[in-house]
Amino acid sequence: MNLRQDRHELDQMFHALADASRRGMVDRLSEGPASVSELARPLAMALPSVVKHLAVLEAGGIVLSAKAGRVRTYRIAPGALSAVESWVSQRKAQWNSHLDRLEQYLSDQTRKSAAEEDR
Amino acid sequence: MNLRQDRHELDQMFHALADASRRGMVDRLSEGPASVSELARPLAMALPSVVKHLAVLEAGGIVLSAKAGRVRTYRIAPGALSAVESWVSQRKAQWNSHLDRLEQYLSDQTRKSAAEEDR
Repeated sequence: MNLRQDRHELDQMFHALADASRRGMVDRLSEGPASVSELARPLAMALPSVVKHLAVLEAGGIVLSAKAGRVRTYRIAPGALSAVESWVSQRKAQWNSHLDRLEQYLSDQTRKSAAEEDR
Repeated sequence: MNLRQDRHELDQMFHALADASRRGMVDRLSEGPASVSELARPLAMALPSVVKHLAVLEAGGIVLSAKAGRVRTYRIAPGALSAVESWVSQRKAQWNSHLDRLEQYLSDQTRKSAAEEDR
C-alpha cells in the first residue's frame, strides 16, 4: 500500500466513524452479523438512509457485506479499526517521547543551576 | 457530559481526523507548539485554509490555541485522542467477548457431538 492510498483509506475510515448513527450500526454489528432491515428496525431511519450509511462504513473498511438471495448481510470486517488504533498509538508514542525529552531537558537545567549555586 | 454531547464530540473528533492535511498538522504539533505561519510553511496551502483546518481540529478537541500579541500558537490538547482510543478499545473488547462466546459455543457443540458418538 503506498502512502497516498494509505492516507485516503484513513480519511475514509475516520469519516465513516464521524457519525453517531454509523457508530451505532458498528455497535449493533459487534454483537453479530445483521441484514439491512435488522439494522434499520431499532432506528428511526428510512431504509435508503441505512443503506447509504452502510455503504460509507463499507468504503471505510469497517464492515463487509455478502448477498444471499435477496438479503444482504453485514458484518464487522476483520481487522476493522486496527488502522485507527495504530494511527492513534503512533501519535501518542510521539507525544510521550517529546514529553520525555522535555522532562530530561528540564531536569538537566535544574541540575545545572543547582551546580552553579553550589559553586 | 450527557450522551448527546458525548456523541457530538466524537462526531467532531473523528471528522477532524478524516483529512490527511489535518492529520499532518497533528504530526507537526506532536513535535511541539507552532504558530499558524509555521504550520503553513511546509504545506502548499493558503493561510486561510490552514486557519480553517486548525479551527476544525480545535472544535474536535485535538488542539488548543492561545494568542500572544498578534501571534496565535497551537498545541496538542492534553488528553487529545483519548476519546478515540477508548471508543476503539471498547468496540474491540466487545468483539473479542463475542468471539469468545462463539468459540465457547463451538467447543461445547464439538464436545456434545463427541459424547453422542461415544454412546
